Formats: sequence, structure tokens, C-alpha cells
Amino acid sequence: MSSVPQAQSPSPALFFDTMNAYQRTAALKGAIQLDVFTAIGEGNSTAEAIARRCDTSERGTRILCDYLVIIGFLTKDGVNYRLTPDTAMFLDRRSPAYMGVAERFLTSPTLMDAYNDVPAIVRRGGSVMSAHGTMEPDHPIWVEFARAMAPMMAMPAEFIAKLLGPAGDARWKVLDIAAGHGYFGIAIARQNPNATIVAADWNKVLEVAKEHAAKAGVSARYQTLPGSAFETPFGTGYHIALLTNFLHHFDVPTCETLLRKIYAALEPGGRVATLEFVPNEDRVSPPVAAAFSFMMLGTTESGDAYTFSQYDEMFRNAGFSRSELHPIPGMPSQVIVSYK
Amino acid sequence: MSSVPQAQSPSPALFFDTMNAYQRTAALKGAIQLDVFTAIGEGNSTAEAIARRCDTSERGTRILCDYLVIIGFLTKDGVNYRLTPDTAMFLDRRSPAYMGVAERFLTSPTLMDAYNDVPAIVRRGGSVMSAHGTMEPDHPIWVEFARAMAPMMAMPAEFIAKLLGPAGDARWKVLDIAAGHGYFGIAIARQNPNATIVAADWNKVLEVAKEHAAKAGVSARYQTLPGSAFETPFGTGYHIALLTNFLHHFDVPTCETLLRKIYAALEPGGRVATLEFVPNEDRVSPPVAAAFSFMMLGTTESGDAYTFSQYDEMFRNAGFSRSELHPIPGMPSQVIVSYK
Repeated sequence: MSSVPQAQSPSPALFFDTMNAYQRTAALKGAIQLDVFTAIGEGNSTAEAIARRCDTSERGTRILCDYLVIIGFLTKDGVNYRLTPDTAMFLDRRSPAYMGVAERFLTSPTLMDAYNDVPAIVRRGGSVMSAHGTMEPDHPIWVEFARAMAPMMAMPAEFIAKLLGPAGDARWKVLDIAAGHGYFGIAIARQNPNATIVAADWNKVLEVAKEHAAKAGVSARYQTLPGSAFETPFGTGYHIALLTNFLHHFDVPTCETLLRKIYAALEPGGRVATLEFVPNEDRVSPPVAAAFSFMMLGTTESGDAYTFSQYDEMFRNAGFSRSELHPIPGMPSQVIVSYK
Repeated sequence: MSSVPQAQSPSPALFFDTMNAYQRTAALKGAIQLDVFTAIGEGNSTAEAIARRCDTSERGTRILCDYLVIIGFLTKDGVNYRLTPDTAMFLDRRSPAYMGVAERFLTSPTLMDAYNDVPAIVRRGGSVMSAHGTMEPDHPIWVEFARAMAPMMAMPAEFIAKLLGPAGDARWKVLDIAAGHGYFGIAIARQNPNATIVAADWNKVLEVAKEHAAKAGVSARYQTLPGSAFETPFGTGYHIALLTNFLHHFDVPTCETLLRKIYAALEPGGRVATLEFVPNEDRVSPPVAAAFSFMMLGTTESGDAYTFSQYDEMFRNAGFSRSELHPIPGMPSQVIVSYK
């Protein structure tokens, strides 16, 4: 993930750069909080103009913006800074795809403090945050997740709804497990006027999902199942189950237990759409998906970024006939569609 | 500095990767503390063998090592991890060039906490650590610097000694300003038996330098000047002044004040060797040197990574006739030699 060039002479450049990598996180978080990207998108291109717009010092703004060029979020031409296409789309507050708010979840103290003592994590083989890490019942971080990560999930939610296709005449019953912000189920409800969504998550998280369902005008077809996905009965008769950003938190036997429960809830021919970071079989590529394994080591007891062959086996062991892997253009996560 | 590929579709991959960049720092620091690189250098190549050697869990070790492959410190072939050439040289404890100890300075709470509130830094245009950041008199971090960063300075110290050349018959008097670990002056003392070193720094830091001078067998030619480089009289008659990792802490007028003081202390024809992170005139390349500006924004009141044209002007304004820039192979910093 680093492009510090491999020098011909031995070089400590990558060591030095990586020791300081925490500053990348801090700079990006700070720039989002100061709304620097919106300021530049509005046409403020010099440090002086950006500083006036953001109520910051010119010196601090110049150094921050140079750093944002170095780490790939801006370009620089003379003294003028510009947004990259990705920055314009995702970090300018005026963009419909703005996802700057995700910094509240991704750099929350709950997550970042999990890495204060990596030797302890590696010795234990799992999170040292608490007995069950972020998998504690009603852990408050999932309300933060639902509010902060929703914009980042808009693209994959639309992708999955299209991938599953229109319902035709069928009255789809859709189970949205660990619904969070609710975007995945809501995207299907908007596409399919005959679809009913049953959203499962912690009670306080479902409040966020219900807000979003109301905004999307699908409340009449939106039901909720509060409580643990492992303990709350799902009922039966589902055509679709959505399992997004969830299995990576658990070990294989726990995943298979849940998949058997989902299998039992599905109609014959029913499908599961699983959204996951799925590294290649080498477990070290592609970089962002593979690195997610380290996120699970730090924040869960026994979660992981599983490969497709691992997911395929879990689904088969739970009774499913087959699974397909679908990359999402531009996104580090992928969709697995599994058939009952 | 990031090689997350520029996707053709809009992609939040770089945003996500950078939000999590603090985990790179944490993983590298943890691997050094667990001595993972030494374990692999000794021939323990699988997660199981490394875990046995480092007294860690196999699962945690596998995930940490995969992550170290992703961020460029290891390679992986099947289930076997190997050191890269740079990792073998700098992070295997058995290597004479081992610099893992630098994590104690580079990831000390004093430095890392400086980035807890980037918006405040950018508003102020300087450190919010304290009135003068790490430039407070006798700030304890400089003792930590002297102990932890010495190995990282061995290569540049040898480079500067060779660049300045042998003294011949001359009885060189060398002023080592902000001597720290003392390696720069000591390298000259070892090369030139006629050289006497006068090391200036805070008193507690000079204790570290004197230890190193004793180990190198040059104590008889090693004198010290405790106190602030701005206030303590240097005396006169110097042939060489060493100004390493120091000017970046200050604004231009303060640098010029110090340079005038050095000019007055030098013999006619005397030289100053300045070691610095010197970005190109665009201030955004090369990445590691240019990024150092953000380190100075966070930890000093008004320091910076100055360009060569800025240094050249400062030296001219202080009376020096000319300056030359010398890259150090493999190192992110460069040497400026200036002539009285």
C-alpha cells in the first residue's frame, strides 16, 4: 500500500514513513473536520483563500494541504490546490456521495484505542478491548456505525439491489440481518414495490434504520426484529437474506451456526447476499480487503477477513447449494450470492 | 505515498485506507516490540514457528505478518514469510544497522499526542502541545531522541564525515550543535585523529553523547557546551560546524540569527554541514522529506521542512558565500554544505 520507492541503496524510508503513518489518519480527519475539501471544491485554491474560508492560519493550511497532496487527496499546480476526482465525489460536502462523516466511526476512540497495545493483541490472538470486543450486546459503537457509515454503504446497497434484480410479481420478504443504517434493505424496498423488509439489529440501531426507512418512504413495508441475530427467531418465508458487514466478526463455527439459522428461514430457491472484505487466497491482496483482517484482530475476539473458498465452504456446510462472488466496481468489498 | 490503485470507477478505497493508516504505525511498533523481524531473520518462516519463538498466538501472528506483507515489510510465499532486504538490514536485531529502537522516539506519546487535534494545529499554525512545543528548554524528549534515534543516524553521520574529507595535518576544531547522541561529531573524530569536537546540547542530552564518545574511544578530544544553542557562547576558531536535524524546528529569522552566530564562530574558509529534510521547490516531493513539514507543524511553534532555495538564502543572509546540496543514498534527508 506504500509507494515509497524501493531504493537501490538500503533505505529506512519505508520504516520512517510507516512509523509516522498515524499522521495520515490525523491529517485526513482534521481536513474533514475543517471542511478543507469543500472549501477547495468551491474554488478556493490557494492556502490563503482556503484559510480564509476555513477560519484557519495560512501557514497551517499550506502545510496541511501539501501533506494532503503527498498522501493522494489533492493535486497541486504552482500554489493552487485541486481536488482529485475521488476527493470531489466523496469528501466535498456538497456531493450527494459525501462520506466524510464516516470519520466519526472509523477514527472513534473505541476503534483506535484497540491498537494501543498490539503485542497484547497478537499474544492473545484477539481484541483486548473487553471480553467480546465490539461484539458485546448493545455496544454503542453500532449506533455510531449506523449514523456514520451509511453514506459509505450507499453504493454497495444500490449494487446489491440491482444484482438481486426486480421481484416481478413476487411479494418478496427480505430479512436484513445486522441492518445498521438500513440502507441495504431500503434499497431493495425502493426498487421492488412488492418487497417487505424485516430488519434485525440492536434496538437502538433499529431506531436509525427506521428513520432512514421513513425518509425513503418505505415505512409501511419496514418491520423490525430487535435483539441478537443469534438468539432472536427470524420466522420463515424469506426470499432474500441480506448479510452485510457481519460474518467477519465471528469464527467459522459461529458463522456456520448463523448460516444454518438463515437457511431454515429461507424459502426454497431463496438467496443470501453477503457483503464482505474478501481477500484473495494468498490473504495479502488486494491490499485494502486483506488489511481488514488486522481490523478484526484488533476489535473482535475471533473475527477475520475470510477468503471466498472459506465462505463457500461455510455456506455449503450450512446446506446452501452454491455461492458466487461479485466484485463491486471501485469498492474494496465484494458480494457473495448464495443459493438455497 | 500510497499505492492504492486509482480505480477507473470512483473509489473510496484511499479514504478508507488512510482512515485506518494509524494501524500501520501500531502494527510496525508491535512487530518491533515482539521482535517478529528477528524471529523471521533467524529462519522461523511460518506463523506457527514465529509464534513459538515470540511467545504469541498463531492466529494473531498470522494476521500481523499478513498485514506486514501488505504494508511492505515482509514477503510471503505460500505460508512462508521472509524479510525484505531493508527489513533484514534495519529491523533484525542481529544486524549492526538495527534501528528498531527508534520506535521509542517516533511513536512516543509526546509526538503522537501532538496530532490529537489537527484542526486546532491548523487554526493556530503551530503546535498546541505547549507554548513552545518540543522546543521548551530541557524538554525530556531530546534525551529519548539521543538514545532512540542514534542508530538511524549512523549512516548519515558516516556520510557527512566522508563528505567533509580528511583533515590532513590540520587540527580541526568541530562544533556539533544540538549534538544529541553525538554520532555526527564522533564520526569525524574517528576519521580525523587531529579533530577536537565541541558538542552543544541540553545537559542531560550531553550525558548520552559523552557515553557514545567514550565507547568510540574519543573522549580525550570531546568537549561539551551545555545549554541553549542560541544563548551559550560558542567561542571561536572552528573549522567545521555540524547542524543536524535542528534548523527545521525554527522560523526563518530564528534560523538566520543562529547562522550568524555560527558564522562568527568559524575560521575563514570554515564550513557548515547541515542535515535536513529538504523537499523540492514544489514542497510535495519527494514524499518522505516533504511530509516532514507536517511533523514540524504538529510539534513546533514555527518550524518547517525548508527547500534548498530557502536554506541557500538563509545562509547568504548570514554571510556565507555559497551552499551545496548533497543527497545521501537511501536516506530521506540531505546534506547542505555551506562555506564562510
